[in-house]
Amino acid sequence: MGGPEIERLVALLSRLPGLGPRSARRAALKLLQEPATRMLPLAHALQDAAAAIRSCHLCGNLDSQDPCAICVDPHRDRGLICVVEQVGDVWALERAHVHRGVYHVLGGTLSALAGQGPEDLNLQPLLDKLQAGGIAEIILALGATVDGATTAHWLTDRIRPFNVNVTRVGQGVPMGGALDVLDDGTLAAALRSRRPV
Amino acid sequence: MGGPEIERLVALLSRLPGLGPRSARRAALKLLQEPATRMLPLAHALQDAAAAIRSCHLCGNLDSQDPCAICVDPHRDRGLICVVEQVGDVWALERAHVHRGVYHVLGGTLSALAGQGPEDLNLQPLLDKLQAGGIAEIILALGATVDGATTAHWLTDRIRPFNVNVTRVGQGVPMGGALDVLDDGTLAAALRSRRPV
Repeated sequence: MGGPEIERLVALLSRLPGLGPRSARRAALKLLQEPATRMLPLAHALQDAAAAIRSCHLCGNLDSQDPCAICVDPHRDRGLICVVEQVGDVWALERAHVHRGVYHVLGGTLSALAGQGPEDLNLQPLLDKLQAGGIAEIILALGATVDGATTAHWLTDRIRPFNVNVTRVGQGVPMGGALDVLDDGTLAAALRSRRPV
Repeated sequence: MGGPEIERLVALLSRLPGLGPRSARRAALKLLQEPATRMLPLAHALQDAAAAIRSCHLCGNLDSQDPCAICVDPHRDRGLICVVEQVGDVWALERAHVHRGVYHVLGGTLSALAGQGPEDLNLQPLLDKLQAGGIAEIILALGATVDGATTAHWLTDRIRPFNVNVTRVGQGVPMGGALDVLDDGTLAAALRSRRPV
């Protein structure tokens, strides 16, 4: 298939989430047909990002600056911390423009199956911030999974001594969602969290 | 979303076929989380491929050598040339191990809509080979589309003076295909090309 360089490129591309072997070949071909306008720019963007991006020591977000742009933003409410599992969750919430506070990225959840314990999570910077004071509310925005719920309980226990409000994001019918396609767990959560209109 | 480096990486990734904005973000995140084992190897693979891969001047295939490995393979029948639209078609036929001859990549089809005329196709090397002699058969393996059929007709006219056999790949029911999900054109072609059992 055109030499070891192409084989290696296809192999690396097919390891990206969302690309299988077939789409990796299509992507490689597209890149090979436009080396100057597609392939080299992508190579340089990868190298630039690898060199520039680091993990924010305050919140665990990825950014080209440390502390990250969100942590140093003077318009953000530093007393309102939204705890998420992954950096991708920060991106999703930022795209939605729904959170005016700062974030804390745990880097995963507790998981008995995956063998992830408290020592694998990024917790200490959050405890340090709580210790320093000035925190009004911690919003737990973890996934609605067994591991997410376990982690939320454990985290609530760790935060309780600091005497701040702990909330978690609502669960129920997603926007645009039809009830008859939802799973039983979501329907139960939606009924439990019903509110007067 | 973490600075201009990440934005640029996501933008370039989302231009790959098969990746939309959402999957490009997921891919970027995966790469950012493993810079040493994923991001830099991909950057280097892209640069290596961009530097090494060139178009074979004999057949139009992409390879790290020119002429390409297929054209110089002594076990290949140089008198049997399979004409395809794209390099991806060569890869597909090579994966299937079904062609023992060599290839000729046109680089597209005639297309009135896309404004592609004969001057946009890679034809001259094929005519040179026909002129030099020793060609027993030209197999047209073009897409079963209007443009593919137009190109096949035009190509047949150009090849006819050289007095070689011109064939085209069969059309009909694909392997594993159920008849009731096939389109009318395929069913018509399958009936037209019926053979005694």
